[in-house]
Amino acid sequence: MAFTRPSGRAPDQLREVRIQRGFTRYAEGSVLVSFGETRVLCTASVENRVPAFLRGKGEGWVTAEYGMLPRATHTRSDREAARGKQGGRTLEIQRLIGRSLRACVDRKVLGERTITLDCDVLQADGGTRTAAITGAYVALVDAINGLVASRAIKVPHGRSPVFGAVAAVSVGIYRGVPVLDLDYAEDCDCDTDMNVVMNDGGGFIELQGTAEGHAFRREELAAMTALAEAGVAQLVQLQREALAG
Amino acid sequence: MAFTRPSGRAPDQLREVRIQRGFTRYAEGSVLVSFGETRVLCTASVENRVPAFLRGKGEGWVTAEYGMLPRATHTRSDREAARGKQGGRTLEIQRLIGRSLRACVDRKVLGERTITLDCDVLQADGGTRTAAITGAYVALVDAINGLVASRAIKVPHGRSPVFGAVAAVSVGIYRGVPVLDLDYAEDCDCDTDMNVVMNDGGGFIELQGTAEGHAFRREELAAMTALAEAGVAQLVQLQREALAG
Amino acid sequence: MAFTRPSGRAPDQLREVRIQRGFTRYAEGSVLVSFGETRVLCTASVENRVPAFLRGKGEGWVTAEYGMLPRATHTRSDREAARGKQGGRTLEIQRLIGRSLRACVDRKVLGERTITLDCDVLQADGGTRTAAITGAYVALVDAINGLVASRAIKVPHGRSPVFGAVAAVSVGIYRGVPVLDLDYAEDCDCDTDMNVVMNDGGGFIELQGTAEGHAFRREELAAMTALAEAGVAQLVQLQREALAG
Amino acid sequence: MAFTRPSGRAPDQLREVRIQRGFTRYAEGSVLVSFGETRVLCTASVENRVPAFLRGKGEGWVTAEYGMLPRATHTRSDREAARGKQGGRTLEIQRLIGRSLRACVDRKVLGERTITLDCDVLQADGGTRTAAITGAYVALVDAINGLVASRAIKVPHGRSPVFGAVAAVSVGIYRGVPVLDLDYAEDCDCDTDMNVVMNDGGGFIELQGTAEGHAFRREELAAMTALAEAGVAQLVQLQREALAG
Amino acid sequence: MAFTRPSGRAPDQLREVRIQRGFTRYAEGSVLVSFGETRVLCTASVENRVPAFLRGKGEGWVTAEYGMLPRATHTRSDREAARGKQGGRTLEIQRLIGRSLRACVDRKVLGERTITLDCDVLQADGGTRTAAITGAYVALVDAINGLVASRAIKVPHGRSPVFGAVAAVSVGIYRGVPVLDLDYAEDCDCDTDMNVVMNDGGGFIELQGTAEGHAFRREELAAMTALAEAGVAQLVQLQREALAG
Amino acid sequence: MAFTRPSGRAPDQLREVRIQRGFTRYAEGSVLVSFGETRVLCTASVENRVPAFLRGKGEGWVTAEYGMLPRATHTRSDREAARGKQGGRTLEIQRLIGRSLRACVDRKVLGERTITLDCDVLQADGGTRTAAITGAYVALVDAINGLVASRAIKVPHGRSPVFGAVAAVSVGIYRGVPVLDLDYAEDCDCDTDMNVVMNDGGGFIELQGTAEGHAFRREELAAMTALAEAGVAQLVQLQREALAG
Repeated sequence: MAFTRPSGRAPDQLREVRIQRGFTRYAEGSVLVSFGETRVLCTASVENRVPAFLRGKGEGWVTAEYGMLPRATHTRSDREAARGKQGGRTLEIQRLIGRSLRACVDRKVLGERTITLDCDVLQADGGTRTAAITGAYVALVDAINGLVASRAIKVPHGRSPVFGAVAAVSVGIYRGVPVLDLDYAEDCDCDTDMNVVMNDGGGFIELQGTAEGHAFRREELAAMTALAEAGVAQLVQLQREALAG
Repeated sequence: MAFTRPSGRAPDQLREVRIQRGFTRYAEGSVLVSFGETRVLCTASVENRVPAFLRGKGEGWVTAEYGMLPRATHTRSDREAARGKQGGRTLEIQRLIGRSLRACVDRKVLGERTITLDCDVLQADGGTRTAAITGAYVALVDAINGLVASRAIKVPHGRSPVFGAVAAVSVGIYRGVPVLDLDYAEDCDCDTDMNVVMNDGGGFIELQGTAEGHAFRREELAAMTALAEAGVAQLVQLQREALAG
Repeated sequence: MAFTRPSGRAPDQLREVRIQRGFTRYAEGSVLVSFGETRVLCTASVENRVPAFLRGKGEGWVTAEYGMLPRATHTRSDREAARGKQGGRTLEIQRLIGRSLRACVDRKVLGERTITLDCDVLQADGGTRTAAITGAYVALVDAINGLVASRAIKVPHGRSPVFGAVAAVSVGIYRGVPVLDLDYAEDCDCDTDMNVVMNDGGGFIELQGTAEGHAFRREELAAMTALAEAGVAQLVQLQREALAG
Repeated sequence: MAFTRPSGRAPDQLREVRIQRGFTRYAEGSVLVSFGETRVLCTASVENRVPAFLRGKGEGWVTAEYGMLPRATHTRSDREAARGKQGGRTLEIQRLIGRSLRACVDRKVLGERTITLDCDVLQADGGTRTAAITGAYVALVDAINGLVASRAIKVPHGRSPVFGAVAAVSVGIYRGVPVLDLDYAEDCDCDTDMNVVMNDGGGFIELQGTAEGHAFRREELAAMTALAEAGVAQLVQLQREALAG
Repeated sequence: MAFTRPSGRAPDQLREVRIQRGFTRYAEGSVLVSFGETRVLCTASVENRVPAFLRGKGEGWVTAEYGMLPRATHTRSDREAARGKQGGRTLEIQRLIGRSLRACVDRKVLGERTITLDCDVLQADGGTRTAAITGAYVALVDAINGLVASRAIKVPHGRSPVFGAVAAVSVGIYRGVPVLDLDYAEDCDCDTDMNVVMNDGGGFIELQGTAEGHAFRREELAAMTALAEAGVAQLVQLQREALAG
Repeated sequence: MAFTRPSGRAPDQLREVRIQRGFTRYAEGSVLVSFGETRVLCTASVENRVPAFLRGKGEGWVTAEYGMLPRATHTRSDREAARGKQGGRTLEIQRLIGRSLRACVDRKVLGERTITLDCDVLQADGGTRTAAITGAYVALVDAINGLVASRAIKVPHGRSPVFGAVAAVSVGIYRGVPVLDLDYAEDCDCDTDMNVVMNDGGGFIELQGTAEGHAFRREELAAMTALAEAGVAQLVQLQREALAG
């Protein structure tokens, strides 16, 4: 029997990706990103202060927070605010998003400002962290472009404080076959799951792979990273179109 | 000089209200409700268990949780999950929503089930609690209709376990004039602010009024409740149209 | 059969109310207030600092905290300090007390000071929040009079920074009849319960009504507010006598 | 110059001690105890359950909780419920009270019940923990006598499940002189402070001494314990009178 | 100038690794592992219960907790127990350790038992998580061998419930050169840092790489994973020697 | 039958005590202290800041934190960091350690510095708090000697800011016989348990005795304190040897 994915997609096929700017109106950047049924609202908020460890250094900060609405998923989860703490998965994801986006910003040009990327999952069908990074990048660019346009930050020689683009996608081994952009049905049942964050120059920013079933081999790693490279290239193109739109 | 509201509305005019069912797909009821720029996602989740104090009594429970995305507002607020507790305002609002919706459900017919209404504010421009109640009612009806349709609950003589409708609106005294459905600009600058929850029979379920500036008089109370009655009647009609749609 | 209240009181009759000043000796104001068996210790503490949002504005702040001793009630409740958080009911009540008393203070005359009203329930038989507001007002006046007497605050033209008086009472519909000042037995079994905070000029400061059984009608609202007006007038008289005593 | 205590008391003189039973009416035991200006409300609550570690063993449990109202003291302290945790001092004191009272109860006769002693300080002028133990003993006896009277517990051969009496007093070295029952003025300025819990047979149950200034010698320890023995004997007599009253 | 590491090691050289079994005596497995100056105490505790989600399924659970003594590092950090929560880094690391070790255990053979691996860092000089995984594996084997020896678990056909071995090492790009087993001096100053968990069959279990400075390229990834493979092979050999010792 | 202790020790015999300086290398003082199988790692950390209540007063602060690794004991305990709070026992012990060590330091000479003594129990066989105090004293001296040696603090007339020595030991009544330095087997089964902190001049700094079984008499108290005096004298001698070593 031929290999088929639950969604009928080809192994190297992304879900339908949409990047909708200006979804809400008060944030300096606001993007609703969808990777198929996964929908994440990413807002970028600019504040004129930095965390204590950066005060007086003339540099800015970029950070992220992640949350999932209690009924984003098939069954309701407890609300983290009601439980009184963020879980380990939440903290791990928001640390990943923050590191990924700091990798593309010149924090000296930003000045003593913090940009917080709030990534709130309205609906979850796998890949929420990769969708969040991909969408938050666009919100971040909007926020920084606003600072440049209002001359709040001065850009030497017209060089943007954003270095290239950052996008992310998951890859995995599903029933023995390397596949791109796992949805929830695949995620629950795969042998290996890897999240890959890359820039538009083809460099790796973050790579987090987990063998769920059996340990993966060097050649499987190579196949997965190749799929991710192609997937990120498409996502970067979609980000560009959204920013141009 | 003639009286004008910041939005240009007449004193007895609601903002544009939209009630969009099925905004997300996994919850048993999912409604995006807008009162002008205020947008609240209300989901209803059905679970086959009840809180400890109801176990074994053959009755169900209806409860609510409320949250606001950090950048729903003009400036970013701390995420309650990160701060490690829900604030007093959040707890007060979710208690109000829960009481309001319990008022229209026959909990004996519901059986030992809990319906949780999660009201998450995507964008806030005043009146989030009244929008939440109005939208959550529709999500609740969708969830209960699903239980009836699947014969999970048996309805004696075809009588729905939902008694009539519940909707809510704010009223206030703005620059001396009683007005309906305050937006944020009015809310910040009014003398009195009152939230009114009513049923479709014109009965009051909850009434919470606060004098912000000067104490209000008996006749102002009467004028505000009259405005609220008319406003709720319109909201109930919009709920009906949404449910019929 | 004639209507009777569990306590034998007439529908418009308050419980015996006592206001004992100077119950403890270190606080700037200290009042033990009783509404029948409900007893609340209200202390007013003056501190020479204000919350961060008021710093440097030359205004003062008035705030309240509420607590109930674990065995104030018929059965023991968990101690909130041991559970590690204040419940929603506590937060809701302390917000109400704080707003009510801020309504009668000229915070500019107070200067950069905070007055905290701690309302601790020693015994609870219904109406703890209304007793707390009524008693805390007297403690607040004592504390402010102390500031005036010691010339810590200067009063322009001898005008006190306290505007009139504030008192509160509950009203409800018990077995179809509007009644004043519900005790616990009535509170558990009433159709509607409303807390009314008013000033001595007959203006409403806060109004919070909840339909426990059936929704209440416009005419029931009018009957309840009329009862409350008469009840608050008596309470204001008792406050005056206590302050004169 | 002759030695004088701030209060003018003789070195071996207790403050005026009052033990008022039935201060509140719902608890199974309720005592307001005063050691001079220190006033502690001690309630005993009986519940028909035991902590998990005792379930099914046929034994009961006696435990204590301690709290101080925010303005029991000369300056206001933060409310522990608002801070979200009990401080180390509170936990230390309530552990001491619980151990002290468990020492006088036959937990097998008590059966699978928990008696919780809530000791809430209404006013603090030093010695709150010793006043709490002394008063809580009386509340405990009242609660257990109630169980015996209602035949909820069966007493073999008429023997009470309470073994003798337990009372506590502080002693210290103040300006070089051993003194009994330190008040706040002495507590702040003493060289050594010791809390002594004893039974009516002259046995020590708890002894906690702290050198505040210089280390104390063996003979000072002997002088302090002798003072404590005499003080506890007086307190036990006052407990007896209160219980007989 | 030739490339040199701060420690003088060759790029593919591990620090001195020691694995000392039986460091403490009560735990079912207790290992002090050192990777140079990094020292982690790893204990394995067996308990006859499983988390709620596994109850009644006949399977066991393997989990990990991670902590760092406040002064394990060059400057003191706050104690997480005192701050009242575990930080994101801690949660991320303990999730990694738990997943890594679950990958080598047949949880059905384990039966309804939980093995908790507590990894407490006594001294930190980089690579604490990889040392923890490497040491915890040995503690886990000791604990499981104890269960087998005492016949608490039955091993079908003499097959151990532990599949092969698991060890972990960090790799990175330091001043442009791929290096093995980074110490703190390198960790602070490297371009890329990757933690690699592998089994003794050369399969990858976890791979977590982060570009600190510039994004890494596909060929750098290959060089790093090759170094890691060689490093893990040495660690597995040291684990075997320790277990044989 | 002759009296024997579970360990075979004479009633006045300490366990084997070892004090190993420099156990870890980053802290300003680092001591692994063993009282038999009880092993506690005590580190002293110097920081150039003081708590808020001491700011600007030119004095230093000495404080302690105490923790027990989850599997220091025969059965695993929950990790306090994971439970989100330190228990009452932990807080009580760390307050005791802090007070004990503050008793031997001239905080004015220390200047605006805080020395934190972290006492982490690696293995617990009774007497962890007394071992902690005894070891922490040595770590404290090492830290202060370092400050003196580096001339960070100036010592008037060569007088050390450490006054004499402080050590601690437990004593108890085990099967009717006063014994020194109880181990876990004795601790679980003794009638009275007392922790005694003394200085090298034979003065008492802290004394905390608890009757576990029957109340202890004045002569038992005298016998126990005499044992403690002899035990502390030996511990002080071992501290001196360690510091000279």
